[in-house]
Amino acid sequence: MQPIGIIHSPFKNLPEMPIQPRGAALREGKVEVFAEFAAGLRDLDGFSHIYLLYLFHMAQRTEMTVIPFMDTAARGVFATRSPLRPNHIGLSIVELAGVAGRILTIRGVDVLDGTPLLDIKPYIAAFDEVHASRSGWMQASREEVSAMRSDDRFVD
Amino acid sequence: MQPIGIIHSPFKNLPEMPIQPRGAALREGKVEVFAEFAAGLRDLDGFSHIYLLYLFHMAQRTEMTVIPFMDTAARGVFATRSPLRPNHIGLSIVELAGVAGRILTIRGVDVLDGTPLLDIKPYIAAFDEVHASRSGWMQASREEVSAMRSDDRFVD
Repeated sequence: MQPIGIIHSPFKNLPEMPIQPRGAALREGKVEVFAEFAAGLRDLDGFSHIYLLYLFHMAQRTEMTVIPFMDTAARGVFATRSPLRPNHIGLSIVELAGVAGRILTIRGVDVLDGTPLLDIKPYIAAFDEVHASRSGWMQASREEVSAMRSDDRFVD
Repeated sequence: MQPIGIIHSPFKNLPEMPIQPRGAALREGKVEVFAEFAAGLRDLDGFSHIYLLYLFHMAQRTEMTVIPFMDTAARGVFATRSPLRPNHIGLSIVELAGVAGRILTIRGVDVLDGTPLLDIKPYIAAFDEVHASRSGWMQASREEVSAMRSDDRFVD
């Protein structure tokens, strides 16, 4: 695995960072794709939303159970979006506001500034749209998610 | 990056394989999570849908432009879900039909039998739901996606 770029965000440290894109809907960030991969961005501007796969580069350890930000009980790590998973890969869906050369402007960025990017995939409703889902322990509303900020529980 | 398990599917070779979970809505598969990671599955059964991150283990090469299954023009690889991306990571949203120990039963599996699993994440509507998205070149309907089958264009 090699980074294909860097995510630039307004969030320089964890306590100010939203825990998910929903908490950062109005915050813009930039994705800088390295020059050698720039040709792969062709036609991406036709999509309104993209998946970013990235490295949780501040998380070093792995835990099989974690207490998520939106909960008070320990949950299996695969039932959470915690960084402390065996492969430290993060996934966010963000709005693609613009493409200029190899710089993407994104809205709803919820990662630390300087996060190494692994992949960009288009969100395609015909593939990805989910109806009538059930979210287990995660019963917080969109508003509660938006208000929540990170802390240092998943670092080191 | 280390596999945390193996995806078992009905698809032993590419020509019979759906190109996306939508094409396999009724096909069941199993996810076998290795014993050392089984504790991480706690509480996952409360979720109706999960993301699987996996290795496109049959794709060796990288291309910056590809002709996707649902199109006839070359597109930037990051504007497609093609396996020929720099980091060969695949992403699928599948329905979680059951959890028995460290074996998950999933519906809508669209990967080759024996695919190495990298991560499982819960689909959480409050984080992930997208409204009013625009899908660029990808104008096929759900029905057209469901009918499409793979071929060997992305192998070797």
